[in-house]
Amino acid sequence: MLKFEVQVTSSRNQARLGRLTLSHGEVETPVFMPVGTQATVKTMTPEDLYEMGVGVILANTYHLYLRPGEELVAKAGGLHKFMNWKRNILTDSGGFQVFSLSKLRKISDEGVEFQSHIDGSRHFLTPEKVMDIEQKLGADIAMCFDECAPYPCSYEEAEQAVERTTLWAKRCREVHRREDQALFGIVQGNVFPDLRVRSAEELVKLDFPGYAIGGLSVGEPKEKMYEILEFMHPLLPANKPRYLMGVGEPEDLIEGVIRGVDMFDCVLPTRLARHGTAYTHKGKITVRNAVYAEDFSPIDDRCDCYVCRNYSRAYLRHLIKAEEILAHRLLTYHNVYFLVNLMAKIREAIREGELERFSQEFFREYKY
Amino acid sequence: MLKFEVQVTSSRNQARLGRLTLSHGEVETPVFMPVGTQATVKTMTPEDLYEMGVGVILANTYHLYLRPGEELVAKAGGLHKFMNWKRNILTDSGGFQVFSLSKLRKISDEGVEFQSHIDGSRHFLTPEKVMDIEQKLGADIAMCFDECAPYPCSYEEAEQAVERTTLWAKRCREVHRREDQALFGIVQGNVFPDLRVRSAEELVKLDFPGYAIGGLSVGEPKEKMYEILEFMHPLLPANKPRYLMGVGEPEDLIEGVIRGVDMFDCVLPTRLARHGTAYTHKGKITVRNAVYAEDFSPIDDRCDCYVCRNYSRAYLRHLIKAEEILAHRLLTYHNVYFLVNLMAKIREAIREGELERFSQEFFREYKY
Repeated sequence: MLKFEVQVTSSRNQARLGRLTLSHGEVETPVFMPVGTQATVKTMTPEDLYEMGVGVILANTYHLYLRPGEELVAKAGGLHKFMNWKRNILTDSGGFQVFSLSKLRKISDEGVEFQSHIDGSRHFLTPEKVMDIEQKLGADIAMCFDECAPYPCSYEEAEQAVERTTLWAKRCREVHRREDQALFGIVQGNVFPDLRVRSAEELVKLDFPGYAIGGLSVGEPKEKMYEILEFMHPLLPANKPRYLMGVGEPEDLIEGVIRGVDMFDCVLPTRLARHGTAYTHKGKITVRNAVYAEDFSPIDDRCDCYVCRNYSRAYLRHLIKAEEILAHRLLTYHNVYFLVNLMAKIREAIREGELERFSQEFFREYKY
Repeated sequence: MLKFEVQVTSSRNQARLGRLTLSHGEVETPVFMPVGTQATVKTMTPEDLYEMGVGVILANTYHLYLRPGEELVAKAGGLHKFMNWKRNILTDSGGFQVFSLSKLRKISDEGVEFQSHIDGSRHFLTPEKVMDIEQKLGADIAMCFDECAPYPCSYEEAEQAVERTTLWAKRCREVHRREDQALFGIVQGNVFPDLRVRSAEELVKLDFPGYAIGGLSVGEPKEKMYEILEFMHPLLPANKPRYLMGVGEPEDLIEGVIRGVDMFDCVLPTRLARHGTAYTHKGKITVRNAVYAEDFSPIDDRCDCYVCRNYSRAYLRHLIKAEEILAHRLLTYHNVYFLVNLMAKIREAIREGELERFSQEFFREYKY
């Protein structure tokens, strides 16, 4: 099931405040979805994420298909039960990972043959197979199997990816059965405006309950991404949620919302944490640096999260230097909270009609 | 400060139920103290440990002296504040680690010269220096600097360790000033009864508020350890707490309590967790083993901890195989809970005069 209501739209930009109702509860949009690649948001328990107000997470079909396998997850009663997550889950289609992580063997209209990045075993994914996997995982939102062209790529490559993405979207729609799971289409087209138009038109005809803007954040300049988002705005149905895949940094969340995006996901808050980096309202800081050795202030003195209320930069740096796992855990908590809380502030600003002022104030301090 | 009241003693064995009052709250004994070597009980937050009912943890002076250094901890306001721990802490003296971890350079009555296991830097620890460090760390209980002879060792080696331990205990007592910190003596003597008698007599004369039984769990057979504990019982003052350092496994906790021990610490619950091993009422299981791949039952169906209430062996095995940090975190939680909860059951059994029956029932199922 999926219901989406736009509650407030802005007169000065494309931002909208909405409410997404899914099988495991309501989610206010715009929303940031933390990534739980292997059926865990790295180092976090579900309770940590509930405490932050996370209502939907992303899990990766490619990884779960390879390990532990969708059959095992189905035997456990589905992904929610397997990982003890009581709120919503979105699964991607695995397409992006097949192209970026695996040894790609052969791609045709039929599907993709590839070798596992874990053990080199051979696999063949088709739209039908991906739908079977995603339905067995049982997320609340499933994504269509798509082909994501790299950046940069030729017009011809991008065009073929658009054609195949439409073909595969039709086949996904054909075999998708679970009524408690919403199936989203993914628009491709790389940086070519006419291909974006074509992809959007073909997918909108298929009437999906939501649309992802795929093929961005793959190496193109940020300005190019923002430009395409603006261009996409009138091409997608206003009454359906829009999801910008794999994005992003705090600045991207704000710029994306201003351009009409409702949903985001990104591994950065968890990945940066593993490298000892934390978000603050002034920008990112590398907590492992010697300059913080005797800094007894919190990561961010404006943050009210569990970590900032209880731990100093000096302690966190010590944990990092001592290679203590608690460092990953605490930095992850803070980083995810930072983005989730940023989205809450963005929603509040939209509600108050103050998003532009909020954005200006944010960027006055935040350096990237 | 330290107050110790023995509330219940057993007529059939040496077990006693007590209450230890320290600067950061009361602790019921016998008690298991989780180890937070580097100012963190690996992967756990203080809240996790409060939730389990942990009232006192151990931290390692040797590690904290080398990194981040006692001066930094003092600047942070002491160890409690540095690591955000609001209950009690015991610091060991570093003696054991100097002998086991570092490159030992020279030992004399004056002190120990050694090289750091981290960066090879040279250090010289004396009883006076250790007291300075422990007072800067500011734990609720500090241990005297002692010499721990290895197992096996000659009578002469063990005798010298006893002599030096007494000499150093006197010097520690001489310079120890903090009234909010209780200083414990450590009895040595290896497996030689007359040396144990001598060490105990010399230290009891110094009238410490508590005594540790050191030099055990260093490789000797379990039966030998139990034998020495029995032998030690009448040698130590009945009205003071007794701490068996570096012990132990579930069976050792029960056997130790029966022989009069009030306090235990051990790295095993956290270390085993890192290796994918978990305690159950039937013994240890290696959760990473393939036999648990489709086992959707909890680690221990008799355990009511957070992990056993929410996660299956199959999910935990998946996390281990996928090298997810959450595996360490959840297994650590369970293992620490298992020992903390075992101690709670032991205390209840002492209170009810049922410790022998409890022990028989425990060992009927628990295999080691």
